[in-house]
Amino acid sequence: MGSLLVVSAHAGDFVWRAAGAIALATSRGDRAKVLCLTYGERGESAKAWREGRTLEEIKELRRVEASAAAEVLGAEIEFLDAGDYPLLETPELVDRIARVYREVEPAVVLTHPTEDPYNQDHPAAARMALHARVLAQAAGYDAPGEPLGAPPVFFFEPHQPEQCGFRPDVLLDITPVFDAKRKAMECLPAQQHMWEYYTDLARRRGVQLRRNAGPNLGLPHTTMGEAYMRLYPQVTGTLS
Amino acid sequence: MGSLLVVSAHAGDFVWRAAGAIALATSRGDRAKVLCLTYGERGESAKAWREGRTLEEIKELRRVEASAAAEVLGAEIEFLDAGDYPLLETPELVDRIARVYREVEPAVVLTHPTEDPYNQDHPAAARMALHARVLAQAAGYDAPGEPLGAPPVFFFEPHQPEQCGFRPDVLLDITPVFDAKRKAMECLPAQQHMWEYYTDLARRRGVQLRRNAGPNLGLPHTTMGEAYMRLYPQVTGTLS
Amino acid sequence: MGSLLVVSAHAGDFVWRAAGAIALATSRGDRAKVLCLTYGERGESAKAWREGRTLEEIKELRRVEASAAAEVLGAEIEFLDAGDYPLLETPELVDRIARVYREVEPAVVLTHPTEDPYNQDHPAAARMALHARVLAQAAGYDAPGEPLGAPPVFFFEPHQPEQCGFRPDVLLDITPVFDAKRKAMECLPAQQHMWEYYTDLARRRGVQLRRNAGPNLGLPHTTMGEAYMRLYPQVTGTLS
Amino acid sequence: MGSLLVVSAHAGDFVWRAAGAIALATSRGDRAKVLCLTYGERGESAKAWREGRTLEEIKELRRVEASAAAEVLGAEIEFLDAGDYPLLETPELVDRIARVYREVEPAVVLTHPTEDPYNQDHPAAARMALHARVLAQAAGYDAPGEPLGAPPVFFFEPHQPEQCGFRPDVLLDITPVFDAKRKAMECLPAQQHMWEYYTDLARRRGVQLRRNAGPNLGLPHTTMGEAYMRLYPQVTGTLS
Amino acid sequence: MGSLLVVSAHAGDFVWRAAGAIALATSRGDRAKVLCLTYGERGESAKAWREGRTLEEIKELRRVEASAAAEVLGAEIEFLDAGDYPLLETPELVDRIARVYREVEPAVVLTHPTEDPYNQDHPAAARMALHARVLAQAAGYDAPGEPLGAPPVFFFEPHQPEQCGFRPDVLLDITPVFDAKRKAMECLPAQQHMWEYYTDLARRRGVQLRRNAGPNLGLPHTTMGEAYMRLYPQVTGTLS
Amino acid sequence: MGSLLVVSAHAGDFVWRAAGAIALATSRGDRAKVLCLTYGERGESAKAWREGRTLEEIKELRRVEASAAAEVLGAEIEFLDAGDYPLLETPELVDRIARVYREVEPAVVLTHPTEDPYNQDHPAAARMALHARVLAQAAGYDAPGEPLGAPPVFFFEPHQPEQCGFRPDVLLDITPVFDAKRKAMECLPAQQHMWEYYTDLARRRGVQLRRNAGPNLGLPHTTMGEAYMRLYPQVTGTLS
Repeated sequence: MGSLLVVSAHAGDFVWRAAGAIALATSRGDRAKVLCLTYGERGESAKAWREGRTLEEIKELRRVEASAAAEVLGAEIEFLDAGDYPLLETPELVDRIARVYREVEPAVVLTHPTEDPYNQDHPAAARMALHARVLAQAAGYDAPGEPLGAPPVFFFEPHQPEQCGFRPDVLLDITPVFDAKRKAMECLPAQQHMWEYYTDLARRRGVQLRRNAGPNLGLPHTTMGEAYMRLYPQVTGTLS
Repeated sequence: MGSLLVVSAHAGDFVWRAAGAIALATSRGDRAKVLCLTYGERGESAKAWREGRTLEEIKELRRVEASAAAEVLGAEIEFLDAGDYPLLETPELVDRIARVYREVEPAVVLTHPTEDPYNQDHPAAARMALHARVLAQAAGYDAPGEPLGAPPVFFFEPHQPEQCGFRPDVLLDITPVFDAKRKAMECLPAQQHMWEYYTDLARRRGVQLRRNAGPNLGLPHTTMGEAYMRLYPQVTGTLS
Repeated sequence: MGSLLVVSAHAGDFVWRAAGAIALATSRGDRAKVLCLTYGERGESAKAWREGRTLEEIKELRRVEASAAAEVLGAEIEFLDAGDYPLLETPELVDRIARVYREVEPAVVLTHPTEDPYNQDHPAAARMALHARVLAQAAGYDAPGEPLGAPPVFFFEPHQPEQCGFRPDVLLDITPVFDAKRKAMECLPAQQHMWEYYTDLARRRGVQLRRNAGPNLGLPHTTMGEAYMRLYPQVTGTLS
Repeated sequence: MGSLLVVSAHAGDFVWRAAGAIALATSRGDRAKVLCLTYGERGESAKAWREGRTLEEIKELRRVEASAAAEVLGAEIEFLDAGDYPLLETPELVDRIARVYREVEPAVVLTHPTEDPYNQDHPAAARMALHARVLAQAAGYDAPGEPLGAPPVFFFEPHQPEQCGFRPDVLLDITPVFDAKRKAMECLPAQQHMWEYYTDLARRRGVQLRRNAGPNLGLPHTTMGEAYMRLYPQVTGTLS
Repeated sequence: MGSLLVVSAHAGDFVWRAAGAIALATSRGDRAKVLCLTYGERGESAKAWREGRTLEEIKELRRVEASAAAEVLGAEIEFLDAGDYPLLETPELVDRIARVYREVEPAVVLTHPTEDPYNQDHPAAARMALHARVLAQAAGYDAPGEPLGAPPVFFFEPHQPEQCGFRPDVLLDITPVFDAKRKAMECLPAQQHMWEYYTDLARRRGVQLRRNAGPNLGLPHTTMGEAYMRLYPQVTGTLS
Repeated sequence: MGSLLVVSAHAGDFVWRAAGAIALATSRGDRAKVLCLTYGERGESAKAWREGRTLEEIKELRRVEASAAAEVLGAEIEFLDAGDYPLLETPELVDRIARVYREVEPAVVLTHPTEDPYNQDHPAAARMALHARVLAQAAGYDAPGEPLGAPPVFFFEPHQPEQCGFRPDVLLDITPVFDAKRKAMECLPAQQHMWEYYTDLARRRGVQLRRNAGPNLGLPHTTMGEAYMRLYPQVTGTLS
């Protein structure tokens, strides 16, 4: 299939929202790379702050945990340490992301939706991921590597989907790799209440997946799913 | 893949809007069935009326032409002769369509979008096609055959897409069968000005298809396309 | 300019919502015809019911008042007496409206918006007005007269515009005829509280009209306006 | 507070989607009435059909189960037996519902959202519930009782919310009555897999409820919720 | 109830759009604080510029007038003097606003809608108000005070609501404090034409408020209202 | 009519998208000015980069070609050379555009739509064009010239309209000047494949224009069109 690139705002996002897609890719033998723009050190580490950790300790903690999760999924991971809460959009950061596109040459891109009233870092990451993708496509863009093709972009599911204009376009069957997703989640002990929450969500998306697939496909009751939204039209030679 | 069912309001709709998808299906060896709810005898036969033909002559003319187009595409065709302009929504007509679903057991369904301010027959046909599909799924629905699965539904492109809320979700590559589509269009001589119009449109959708696919796929400059919109989320085991 | 046709659900709607456009048309010497599908005898005559009038008395009252308002505006008026609350959509009623289109050959059509959670008769009237317009365009439609052209359709402003998806596309300057509108409103004594309300609204739309026109046009502070929404794109030879 | 009226298409809908709101009302001492337009005998009784039951047996089964669930919740229940799959919209049925409004004089109304591509009976029920409410408001509507006020309408959550345009406007805390909701669900043994599904959903909506309420309110981790969507603006004397 | 925080772009916005909500809060004994990001010295002081005032004079004039209006309403007021037309979004300004959140600990937040094609300062202020609110919630955000809860956010009504995607979710009854709102408006003599305009609007929103409340509530004909739009779902224990 | 101002991101945009409107203006004797924020040197010059040209050579090439096209259309052209891919939004650039508004005093403004997932420079240009227009309206804005009026803004058609939320509001008849548009396109030899593409599009918009105008207007089969979208409501004294 080609490489998978995941651009996420904070260190943990890729686990809750896209670990299934990542594990499916690596289980097929494809390269998967996770690009974390920040460690989520301020905005998503409430427990550590309450415990009195320093900024550097928290970054290190998040780095270690997210790296372990990536390893479980068979994915590479890179941290740009751009600073969160707020994650500032700068031309320099967009350029760094564009260079990653040129290096990875992804066949598929995953990122946050562009709307999220609960967390402005998520749309900021998404806007930069989308901007960098278009820059990397231009022959005249001054960065190493060949002009990028037009990899499809999928938005992964936010925490409160309906408040973010998130309407699933794609239900991905992650049943074969759900165990890996669960193990990756368990690499993030500070958010233990999320393990059950995102297992429930996978089950719920699985129920919808079976309903949309119809009984003919014979999917089991234990089907687990992840929901995605396409930014661009699907290109295909067959309707299905 | 399984069968393809196309539900269209008038006799000619399936040619301009979905002949590519039909020819792709039959060229793969799949069954394709076109269900025309009416002949389009009042609303889409202005030339024949101006020539002074009778209602019955016009129906026969449309039947012959549409049948020839279906034959070129390798598809079956059935006419329900429900009367157009207006096409009335009745429980009886919905039931007849539901029985066709039960008989054909389609793997894929094509119909009009549910919004069209230029032609109320089109949304009426779409609403009945969607309603009948859900009825045919119910074990308790009193009609021959097995309960239907959950075949995906694709809306084909209306004449003025932007005024109908039509935003392409899927760009279908119909290059291998475009010659068949052109031949099918030429079976409808009363609308000769449409041949060029829909050839242009296929070329335009082909340009967009190449742009969304990216240069990597190596699609030729002569790529031809048809645009579709999904009603339900795509179910898949792979993001691409 | 050609004729103006106004299709309204109840007897009073055309006064509050479109009297300015009507008076502008007739003051230019154009024909204007108001088609009231019902008298609004059940849904918009609360005062008369509380006074113990009979159904027939109420219809007559509404007929007389609306006719007086039409006369003030220089417009013809016709009542189809189709029964309100609920106004039922039937093929026969749509056909009657289509015949009016064929007779009037309007250059411009006004009706209700297609969404109104406070009054289902309004969207029902609008749907029938739109359906009949398309039927009347067809050469094969069996009704006297020539096939209709494609007159533009404008939705007039509902009572609670934001709840009806009403976003003004057109601000019409009715300053020269506002006195006639006020006089027409005063023909409806049962709804006296509406006189001030719709005078205020005209002033408010006038303020917006001046703001959107810019100071260059030199519109006076006393500008009065009516808001409309287009169903179809404007066709023009000049952008302005 | 006044009475609660729930209008649902099939016998089980009120349990999965609104049992919490119902139990909160009755636990406050308010009257709650559930109006089931059909038994869901064809569309939502697949198991019974597979077991070879007759139509009448299935209706009876559904009647008994739904009545038991209503009793657990302390609510009245009435079945109109209008026939499902398809549930046909008729003036007579709308009139029957309008008469229920006049009798119950609800302070709050619950029904389905008006969009559901998986089940056309749900929007049909909603359209009739909304239409009947407006008819019952008219002084001139010919039915016993006083003209209805303007009770707010809330849409309860459909099975696939994002595909139905369902964006929660209100998160209702049902923690105090969740046990009753669970017991009511357990009155419907044919859909046992739904018990866990809708318990999970209540937990998920509870998590969102806590997040939107903020930590200040001190809601417990065990908070359970139901999501609703308003049709009309909230009227209030205090922003909160 | 807790404190009310109003974040507005220019010095006068809070008066026209939210004076009723502010006066209701202070009349209940709650603290209300108005945060004006700018004086509106360039964009909303046309009269003063035409009179030849200097920039500093205009700022002072606006400061005095807005302070008087706040005093009438019983509210505190603070000016950040960030410069208008354009109001630039900077991390520093967002941080200053976040610190105000931490200090005020609002129970409710009011600001502009995020869309306004007539005035880019309004959405800029809204984006910063929303961003700062989320930052202030984070335990790791480096500012004095405790992490903020999750106060609900209401958008107040813009000058041309339909062009700003403004659809009222909440109609607030400001009848008891309308006199105070009128007095506050009269503190802004340069925009005297707005006094009547916003009195009319309050009357219009009052009419809609009564219509949505229904006759049962017995609201008087003199009801005055303000319209708001919620950003987040309402959290409640009772549907009403 | 007054002057026409076209604000475009790159050197070629005005030709493909708005040459018809420009030629109509100049053929009426009106001034038309094209403001190109960049040369499109990086993002829209793939062929030149593949041929090994330097940045300066490419800029010069684009400048010469676009100037030739403008001359064919009878329009002035100015290049701000702000740098593309990415086109950065800065207060300084917005100020430069505001000063052009003050100098040109346009009666009509054309620019890109504000949404384009294929090219972030286009929305960036549009946002700056809209922002500058509002700044130039303010009496207090510190730039030479008189405060601007409120010229209407039209968005011209993007390459993939449906993906950019582009719904045509206005269909402009460019038949009388299409030859000039074709000649202007032929001034851009590097994009020769676009000549036919945009000729096809003009024909397609012409077909829609005739359909929306109706047969009464007697427009010829050779009608050519351009599509536009209005940002603000139309202000008029006549509905048509």
